[in-house]
Amino acid sequence: MPFMSSINVGLFGLGVVGSGVLEILRRNGELIRRRLGAELRVTKAVTAHPEKKRAVPLDGISVSRDPDTILKDPNIHIVAELMGGTDLARRVVLDALNAGKPVVTANKALLALHPAEIFGKAYEKGLPLGLEASVAGGIPVLRALREGLAADQILEITGIVNGTCNYILTKMSEEGAAFDQVLAEAQRLGYAEADPTFDVGGFDAGQKLAVLVNLAYGATVNFPDIHVEGIAGVTPMDIGYARQLGYAVKLLAIAKPRGERVEARVHPALISRSHLLASVGGVFNAVFLTGDNVESTLHYGRGAGGLPTGSAVVGDLIDLSRAILSRSLGRMPPLSVQREHVRALAVMPMDEINSEYYLRFQVQDRPGVLAQITRVMGDRNISIKSMFQPSQADHPEDPVQVVLITHQALERDVQASLREIQPMPFVRGPTQMIRIETFEK
Amino acid sequence: MPFMSSINVGLFGLGVVGSGVLEILRRNGELIRRRLGAELRVTKAVTAHPEKKRAVPLDGISVSRDPDTILKDPNIHIVAELMGGTDLARRVVLDALNAGKPVVTANKALLALHPAEIFGKAYEKGLPLGLEASVAGGIPVLRALREGLAADQILEITGIVNGTCNYILTKMSEEGAAFDQVLAEAQRLGYAEADPTFDVGGFDAGQKLAVLVNLAYGATVNFPDIHVEGIAGVTPMDIGYARQLGYAVKLLAIAKPRGERVEARVHPALISRSHLLASVGGVFNAVFLTGDNVESTLHYGRGAGGLPTGSAVVGDLIDLSRAILSRSLGRMPPLSVQREHVRALAVMPMDEINSEYYLRFQVQDRPGVLAQITRVMGDRNISIKSMFQPSQADHPEDPVQVVLITHQALERDVQASLREIQPMPFVRGPTQMIRIETFEK
Repeated sequence: MPFMSSINVGLFGLGVVGSGVLEILRRNGELIRRRLGAELRVTKAVTAHPEKKRAVPLDGISVSRDPDTILKDPNIHIVAELMGGTDLARRVVLDALNAGKPVVTANKALLALHPAEIFGKAYEKGLPLGLEASVAGGIPVLRALREGLAADQILEITGIVNGTCNYILTKMSEEGAAFDQVLAEAQRLGYAEADPTFDVGGFDAGQKLAVLVNLAYGATVNFPDIHVEGIAGVTPMDIGYARQLGYAVKLLAIAKPRGERVEARVHPALISRSHLLASVGGVFNAVFLTGDNVESTLHYGRGAGGLPTGSAVVGDLIDLSRAILSRSLGRMPPLSVQREHVRALAVMPMDEINSEYYLRFQVQDRPGVLAQITRVMGDRNISIKSMFQPSQADHPEDPVQVVLITHQALERDVQASLREIQPMPFVRGPTQMIRIETFEK
Repeated sequence: MPFMSSINVGLFGLGVVGSGVLEILRRNGELIRRRLGAELRVTKAVTAHPEKKRAVPLDGISVSRDPDTILKDPNIHIVAELMGGTDLARRVVLDALNAGKPVVTANKALLALHPAEIFGKAYEKGLPLGLEASVAGGIPVLRALREGLAADQILEITGIVNGTCNYILTKMSEEGAAFDQVLAEAQRLGYAEADPTFDVGGFDAGQKLAVLVNLAYGATVNFPDIHVEGIAGVTPMDIGYARQLGYAVKLLAIAKPRGERVEARVHPALISRSHLLASVGGVFNAVFLTGDNVESTLHYGRGAGGLPTGSAVVGDLIDLSRAILSRSLGRMPPLSVQREHVRALAVMPMDEINSEYYLRFQVQDRPGVLAQITRVMGDRNISIKSMFQPSQADHPEDPVQVVLITHQALERDVQASLREIQPMPFVRGPTQMIRIETFEK
């Protein structure tokens, strides 16, 4: 191995994750030196606010506003992009790769929105990308996909990858509280942003799913094709009924290979309370991966936070340092397949998926209603697994809740049935539809 | 990268795991070729019974009884040792490394019993060791320790790593059945060996714990110093009481750093039913790892079986192939630290550990008994967290069960108390002691 007494990192971003990285390098520098036989240190940082006081000491780090102080410095061996966003971050990652510097990034948005460009550049330059921090914080699940499960066809990815949503749904379930109320509490506690749309709307989970799919299948998917639904429509009533039926409600990011395409979707889902994912509570994340040989695996841990995410960043910095020291930057292709096998992977339209469904109708409590609903559904080959009417109406005009659980059915047929049922005269309110994830293996 | 159209593997052992490997290479050969840009194939196999018919086709594989057909063949690039045992396997692994061939092994016994020799040889030769299959089958948990969590000090390892024991304890818990009865059923179903001692005695879990500790701390531990207890003494009564108190009973492999030493022990333990490990049922394995930055992580999946374990072997073969193709066999030090930092790590004597304890006394049901027991314990600084007497005796001479849960106490003090209490006149049978694992973070 070439003798190098230190690996110098140029850090973009001194926010929560950047500060976590500096704290970890300070605290575990000696451990890391024992691993590498060289020191791993941040020598330069770039931030929009170099003058700002930071909680973590910046001794020995030259801080600037100018990206070129890092990008044009031949003594910087690795670039860590921890700014977020897709404008400056995109230019920084591309410029770093063009300058021959391997990159670590925690930027799921960049990877989800510009996969062909970012992965393409890494392939072109024969450089590795450290991405572990971009999905599920400190959980080494991307490493499992690229390396640990490299011998397997991935048959299913089912992730709880947004801590805010999981916190809210866990609290709603434990306390019977409404979404708005729990969201406000989560905002007070710092588990939700002032503008929570990106998290509770499912977009954050969608971007993470895109990265998982890209790595699982050595491919790039078009993020806008991924179906994304958030959790704002989930009510305590549905969570309560689901529990009575043996289910928990989780925001899931789901992907499955479908011939030459992939099924990829984010939405609230009912899962059996006996499934391990149902026990993943609060802000924790977990990704359930099924391989054709390994069968079921679960990868669980903290999905956010400066130190957990920082741990993934520093793990990748160690990995890239080992690549530099052993002169093997090209060892691991960025998407775990050789360049000529990377393909654009089409997402199957939502209409074509099959699922079981939880349907809650609000209807007038009179004979014949259930027959009319089930006739519409039967005409579209949707068969009913169970029916559940929690209570009877006090007055004949009062609406009652009728819950149907379907067998596997085609989304297109279910949506058409709901459109046909909604205008019927006995319907007293909007119908709730939540998919049920039954797991294939 | 050097152009190599194929990586040739020499396989020792054509049993369950060896056959799984061949099946995976056959089925997913194209996927693996896309990853490597070269074919990964087994060209030679060595087995004690070359003439035996195998379920998996051996086309293109030259099968022999002679290890040298592989070890002396310059066209063999990687040796996979899947025989088990520590005699021939030891010679094969050492000879392969001496011949400059990187090694993949699923052999926990070899790694646990001869760590200094095996890891030492790999370091001396600058060659990687693929070990993923040696612990917890298809779960990529060793990769998590060597790479994913490389930035962290590992504060706790808590594993359910023996599927036989977990199956038996799960069944005992679900059915209230006795150990012997469930063991017999497990033997019928093929989940337990005809001679079950190695599994149910905790030795298998102990060997896996040794490997986990070696990798977590870049060290070698002396396997005989690891405290190992099996599950034969666990009764349905204890499992029932534990459940009433909010606990599940699991066979745990536990390790924690203790200054310059390590706590490392295998025994049945009570864990909170709300802990994720309590939901790990049947033959599944899981390893709970806590890092100083990443905090809690869980790694779950199948711990045995030809395909799940074969998946880990082939994952390692892919990894070593990438190392060969990128000429970076020395990239990853076998224990994830540089050679000069590998140390012999002392195991803390069991007497010095601290734990909470579940103690079930069988005593005469008369006033003053509890006072005498708690006085003995109080004199040794053991304080009682809760007491539970499930029933009263019909006749004054009949024994009753008295369950005490202690606060954290020193093992030496607990053992001394039990020795002091056992001969007391009111004691009507042996006392049951099961440690309670409370998790530190």
